[in-house]
Amino acid sequence: MIKANDPKLKSWVPVPKGSDFPIQNLPFGIFKTPGLTPRMCTAIGDHIADLQVLSEHGFFDDLDVPREVFAQPTINNFMALGKIKTRAVRNRISEVLDDDLEDWDASQLADYFLHPQQEVEMLLPVEVGDYTDFYSSREHATNVGTMFRGKDNALMPNWLHLPVGYHGRASSIIVSGTPVRRPMGQQIPNDAEQPVFGPSKLLDFELEMGFVVGKSTKLGSRVDVAQAEEYIFGMMLFNDWSARDIQKWEYVPLGPFLGKSFASTISPWIVTLDALEPFRTAGPKQNPEPLPYLQIEGANTFDIHISMAIQPENGEEKTVCTSNFKYLYWSMAQQLAHHTVNGCNLRVGDIMASGTISGQEESSYGSMLELTWRGTKPIAMPDGSERKFIHDGDTVTMRGYCEQDGLRIGFGKAAGKVLPAQP
Amino acid sequence: MIKANDPKLKSWVPVPKGSDFPIQNLPFGIFKTPGLTPRMCTAIGDHIADLQVLSEHGFFDDLDVPREVFAQPTINNFMALGKIKTRAVRNRISEVLDDDLEDWDASQLADYFLHPQQEVEMLLPVEVGDYTDFYSSREHATNVGTMFRGKDNALMPNWLHLPVGYHGRASSIIVSGTPVRRPMGQQIPNDAEQPVFGPSKLLDFELEMGFVVGKSTKLGSRVDVAQAEEYIFGMMLFNDWSARDIQKWEYVPLGPFLGKSFASTISPWIVTLDALEPFRTAGPKQNPEPLPYLQIEGANTFDIHISMAIQPENGEEKTVCTSNFKYLYWSMAQQLAHHTVNGCNLRVGDIMASGTISGQEESSYGSMLELTWRGTKPIAMPDGSERKFIHDGDTVTMRGYCEQDGLRIGFGKAAGKVLPAQP
Repeated sequence: MIKANDPKLKSWVPVPKGSDFPIQNLPFGIFKTPGLTPRMCTAIGDHIADLQVLSEHGFFDDLDVPREVFAQPTINNFMALGKIKTRAVRNRISEVLDDDLEDWDASQLADYFLHPQQEVEMLLPVEVGDYTDFYSSREHATNVGTMFRGKDNALMPNWLHLPVGYHGRASSIIVSGTPVRRPMGQQIPNDAEQPVFGPSKLLDFELEMGFVVGKSTKLGSRVDVAQAEEYIFGMMLFNDWSARDIQKWEYVPLGPFLGKSFASTISPWIVTLDALEPFRTAGPKQNPEPLPYLQIEGANTFDIHISMAIQPENGEEKTVCTSNFKYLYWSMAQQLAHHTVNGCNLRVGDIMASGTISGQEESSYGSMLELTWRGTKPIAMPDGSERKFIHDGDTVTMRGYCEQDGLRIGFGKAAGKVLPAQP
Repeated sequence: MIKANDPKLKSWVPVPKGSDFPIQNLPFGIFKTPGLTPRMCTAIGDHIADLQVLSEHGFFDDLDVPREVFAQPTINNFMALGKIKTRAVRNRISEVLDDDLEDWDASQLADYFLHPQQEVEMLLPVEVGDYTDFYSSREHATNVGTMFRGKDNALMPNWLHLPVGYHGRASSIIVSGTPVRRPMGQQIPNDAEQPVFGPSKLLDFELEMGFVVGKSTKLGSRVDVAQAEEYIFGMMLFNDWSARDIQKWEYVPLGPFLGKSFASTISPWIVTLDALEPFRTAGPKQNPEPLPYLQIEGANTFDIHISMAIQPENGEEKTVCTSNFKYLYWSMAQQLAHHTVNGCNLRVGDIMASGTISGQEESSYGSMLELTWRGTKPIAMPDGSERKFIHDGDTVTMRGYCEQDGLRIGFGKAAGKVLPAQP
């Protein structure tokens, strides 16, 4: 067992019941305050711990980790140290926060390195290289395929043979809390022959998880599916905002473009694969058997509960769907092996998202498109209004966590408020 | 007229007849030598001029340009200075290389800052943010559409209303001279129901031009089509290598992915829009009239001759197609206005490519797919072999230049040798 994962550990920092951030989590992020430059931190209960300060006090000096890596505005250089060193740092943070203090009493330094989460601003934790979005939920692909091509042709012929994916826009990946402006764009009204220009009327979320690459590869080389997790530093919540009307008109034949590139919201916390280890589980059985380069035995996914909620302006929040990462047909290892099978190179900071994660139950569908079945079954909101798609003023919040035997490892949230379009 | 564009200028550095790099060009690139760290340079005749050395000698000190911008391994920070300053630098380089020397005699410093091009290694000039590939040649879209859907449905309904584009892979953009390994991947044999895995058999080039963004925008803002060229620093040659068999199997419904992401080759030189100004011309008439946000009057494209050649290993090179950038239906300004109309933000270093540039003549088709009409009309090579697609050992070289009234502004070349797949 990874030392920092020991369920018996307790922190001297208070961790409220139900917190996403017990001492067994220790995710990584970037924060700033009016007085402090952007730097690395971890989360513990309702606090963040400033890793630059810990580093400056020498807590990591014996780990052969340069102090300045914690003073960067992204975690990229930290991830690039490799899993041996980043695991050692996580274990050391665990020792510093452990209430069973030995050589030091870090709690005496608490005023220097702990801040209430509500008093800091969390920033985008990763400088994103390339962003790839997969389409790995069989239920989602089947739902969308059924709507657009009928039940018998729902899945494309390639879908069960490879993890379908496409390149997305990296520049517009934003951190939780950043408002999202409703996009303008071309749409084609039903039965019209000419497109019109205006605000998207069919603004949607997509309930996804992403992972970040922590190890680069050379152009021309491939990552073996059995080694693929070595290249994955950690995971995050991912809301792939989508404008369905823009997407529908533009996407043939080269795929989604402006219907997606206006914003994708991620959580500020990157939860390491190490912290997720206790929640490892098997994914769905794959039939037909994939080609050999995609074959992998064992438990290759994680049991992560995810949900999306909508809060109207001045209204009460309603959770509109709950799903689970483990429903995905294609695992992260398979996605990564496929992505590099042609020799495409990876860079530290690349983000790959899962695609919308829908389950079999209607309540687990991961987008408004599916939940309201193209707007034909509106969702009733607590304030008496209804939603076919997202309204201006709505705050859309994704949450995610693992939980078993009293241990909860959470991701925090990925939230964004929708602002009206600027005509 | 921009001062450095004066056709009467002559350099004290010899410029051979037919050179791409007279004193009126002055493109920007990055070079290194065994003794010199990567740094900015320009091209003059068969030489490059080291801009870091010129900067250290104070030649740009009065232009309010920090000296260290020339000592960077990419031109991103230079581009980010803005067109007023980068234009002033280009004008100053022109004065330094002008044979009508006034205040100084830079030729006395020639040994310090001039190197024969063949003695330096040119590097990727740009740190690429996001890379977008458009599909803006009507002839190319019609050719491909005719092959796959028949003549009557060749163009998709959206094609004449918007510049169709998709996100590409930035990490695998490489500089001319870098070998390209034939990709492995899934393909579906004709009439088969199961895919097979192996080396691509249908490796192709795509004759494209790219431009690089020199000015960033904020998420949520749009670039007006009339101002769009202010955001374009310069242009480059762009070979969008394509594996047609991988692409065909994978691309529904989300677009090209591994069929493209193994490599895209660009020229080492970024030719400024300023240098291209004398070759400004009008593009094709657009009918139907585009929506207002895409409407722009006047001469919005450039007359740039482009070609692709194939040289078998130990064989003679053959130019297999010649085309022209001005054939494109959608202009760069329209592409950029469209790209940002949904609020998608631009970053300095973003590259946008045109899509394959085909003309009306068969000899101007910009890919082997079109030139050999899916392999049905092979091309005879000087060594007696024939080509349906690209063979291992072939070197594929793109060239491009503008020329009129004795003035030639060229792009050099974008070349890559194909290495066999690694099974």
